Amino acid sequence: MRDDLTVRDVSIIGIGQVPVGEHWDRSLRHLAYEAILAAVRDGGIDRIDALYIGNMLSGELNSQEHLGALVADFAGLRGVEAVKVEAACGSGAAALRMGYIAVAGELADVVVVCGVEKMTDTIGDDTTSALAMAADADYEASQGLSFVAINALLMRRYLHEYGFSHSDFAHFTVNAHRNAANNPYAMFRHPVTVEAFRQARMIADPINLLDSSPICDGAAAVVLAPTAWVRGRGRRNVRIAASAIATDSVSLHDRRDPLWLDAVALSAQKAYKQAGVGPQEIDLFELHDAFTIMSALSLEASGFAPRGGGVRLAMEGDIFIGGRIPISTMGGLKARGHPVGATGIYQVVEVVEQLRGEAGANQVGDAHWGMAQNIGGSGATVITTILEGGE
Amino acid sequence: MRDDLTVRDVSIIGIGQVPVGEHWDRSLRHLAYEAILAAVRDGGIDRIDALYIGNMLSGELNSQEHLGALVADFAGLRGVEAVKVEAACGSGAAALRMGYIAVAGELADVVVVCGVEKMTDTIGDDTTSALAMAADADYEASQGLSFVAINALLMRRYLHEYGFSHSDFAHFTVNAHRNAANNPYAMFRHPVTVEAFRQARMIADPINLLDSSPICDGAAAVVLAPTAWVRGRGRRNVRIAASAIATDSVSLHDRRDPLWLDAVALSAQKAYKQAGVGPQEIDLFELHDAFTIMSALSLEASGFAPRGGGVRLAMEGDIFIGGRIPISTMGGLKARGHPVGATGIYQVVEVVEQLRGEAGANQVGDAHWGMAQNIGGSGATVITTILEGGE
Repeated sequence: MRDDLTVRDVSIIGIGQVPVGEHWDRSLRHLAYEAILAAVRDGGIDRIDALYIGNMLSGELNSQEHLGALVADFAGLRGVEAVKVEAACGSGAAALRMGYIAVAGELADVVVVCGVEKMTDTIGDDTTSALAMAADADYEASQGLSFVAINALLMRRYLHEYGFSHSDFAHFTVNAHRNAANNPYAMFRHPVTVEAFRQARMIADPINLLDSSPICDGAAAVVLAPTAWVRGRGRRNVRIAASAIATDSVSLHDRRDPLWLDAVALSAQKAYKQAGVGPQEIDLFELHDAFTIMSALSLEASGFAPRGGGVRLAMEGDIFIGGRIPISTMGGLKARGHPVGATGIYQVVEVVEQLRGEAGANQVGDAHWGMAQNIGGSGATVITTILEGGE
Repeated sequence: MRDDLTVRDVSIIGIGQVPVGEHWDRSLRHLAYEAILAAVRDGGIDRIDALYIGNMLSGELNSQEHLGALVADFAGLRGVEAVKVEAACGSGAAALRMGYIAVAGELADVVVVCGVEKMTDTIGDDTTSALAMAADADYEASQGLSFVAINALLMRRYLHEYGFSHSDFAHFTVNAHRNAANNPYAMFRHPVTVEAFRQARMIADPINLLDSSPICDGAAAVVLAPTAWVRGRGRRNVRIAASAIATDSVSLHDRRDPLWLDAVALSAQKAYKQAGVGPQEIDLFELHDAFTIMSALSLEASGFAPRGGGVRLAMEGDIFIGGRIPISTMGGLKARGHPVGATGIYQVVEVVEQLRGEAGANQVGDAHWGMAQNIGGSGATVITTILEGGE
């Protein structure tokens, strides 16, 4: 993308979310509608130029494609421009990127971006098979590799190469659950101990249940508008300082170095350059902790730790609220939950809460720069968003 | 969207397509790669800022989501911004709209948009169930309505309300097959007669086999760049004069008038306004003839015929090359083929061929304004693109 950006500034002027969980009484479209309604009310807007939906699995799990028109109609927006954007578990932030482009480029003024996923009470394939569609169908899934197993290969290699033990990852989970306890939208609002982490049931060796984010339902939405509209409106402004997508090979075996996520590094570098900041300026980082190993690798490739040093940030408490680089401040994918296509929007909603000073007991002090990073597959699509809080 | 458009002009500087058909020897990613390579060579470009993929069914039929990164990597573009855009059978043109927004808004300079679909040699659900995901899963598909049956309800109502007989629709098919005979990328390159149309096997009464577009594989791609780049380069310029998406209720029963496609009318009106032309200026119209009834309804709501008058344009030969408003000039969905997520890009590629004067035996004389219209579902998402040929 162009370096000489001449586009206008874009702000997030409304946020909405539904509690993550198992919603046996609400359909896909209903979840999306609730999140959109909350965001529209929060933003206080009376017009919408376009609606972009982030979703990965509606076809496979809900036998429903065509979510753009479907959700637009159910949300009372019949007629509006609406499409679905998909980039596996990165679908939410990929849709946000499309909305950002439309507003920054002056093709639209008010865009709503909604991430939604319904993974329970489904009528299609089983969820494990569906999630494997984020991996390479020909070279990974068809060989019997589930998505958890791919991450297990990564974690095993990490333990071997850097000499850590599995329990060194415990504080990623301890931190996430502790923070989720104060988030009314989180799925798992109970703390876990290091001992519980050690004893948890094995899923795909060495990944156990407490390394893993849950299967769940959820929806979150944001309203985007030109920053010039909101300045001076009396509300704390949150500006999108950067939005960057980068890709890598979908299959793990085809990368030059499985323990270095090239697309995380490239996406983060592009975002830092666009925002004019570096990792040292970031006050909190909502990273893609679908598995604890992804947290460590994301911290490293994003520049918060050297190679093999990501897990040390957890061991030493640097990732806690009050630490050097707080992560998963509202529970993360692990404890807030990971409704895959919605996750990227939940992350951004949470960063906005922090930058507005509305994060309650989990407030990061003096938060000015917040970063969210949403990942599709085992690092094949990475969207990094940097937000700046205003006065 | 904004009326006071301040964005820069965008041109299509490269086109590529693979023959539509049953490609038992080529995978989804391979088809996309071939189309992209052809478009990149045609455009003579040496950089790409982003890749947008239009596709509807890869999850359901190929057990593969995450096509953005997958295709980017296979096409030699590892690292590039890449996402999939989905709007049922309108996915191709919806992806084009995202590419147009990125270039028009100056967020990118060179964007490749590829539509791809692999509907044969699949490993997932059956194709009829998969296509029904374009309809409403809760209110249509779960009631046993296939996608053909939904169109059959529309056609039955049309015959009843306006007093036509089924064979009045024959010339939509005769025209499409006649034109496809001269298109090396078309699936059905044989002419059909009115008598053959009358005798064709029934699919869902009153829709028969020759009312219907085929299940097939295909991929097509275009390269977008700022118009300012291509003026004076010696190549005939084709500018995107308008690009507009509109939506309607996904389920047919929920519309105020099933025989008037509101989203077609809204999308066309927006496009006419943006381009500064009306239907009388359009020299050819690549419409969404998934079924003959959709051709009639599209002609009406787009302003080429009054209500109930669309089928007369076929009966009187106005839709033929040389007629008042040529449609399906390279075979249309009916005879070129309808690989659903790719169709919107094939349509645009064909309009570019016409406006460049490269349509061979099917050339529309003095073609200056060409329109393509891609439809998702039974009219729930409609993307209208108007192209202007240069000197």
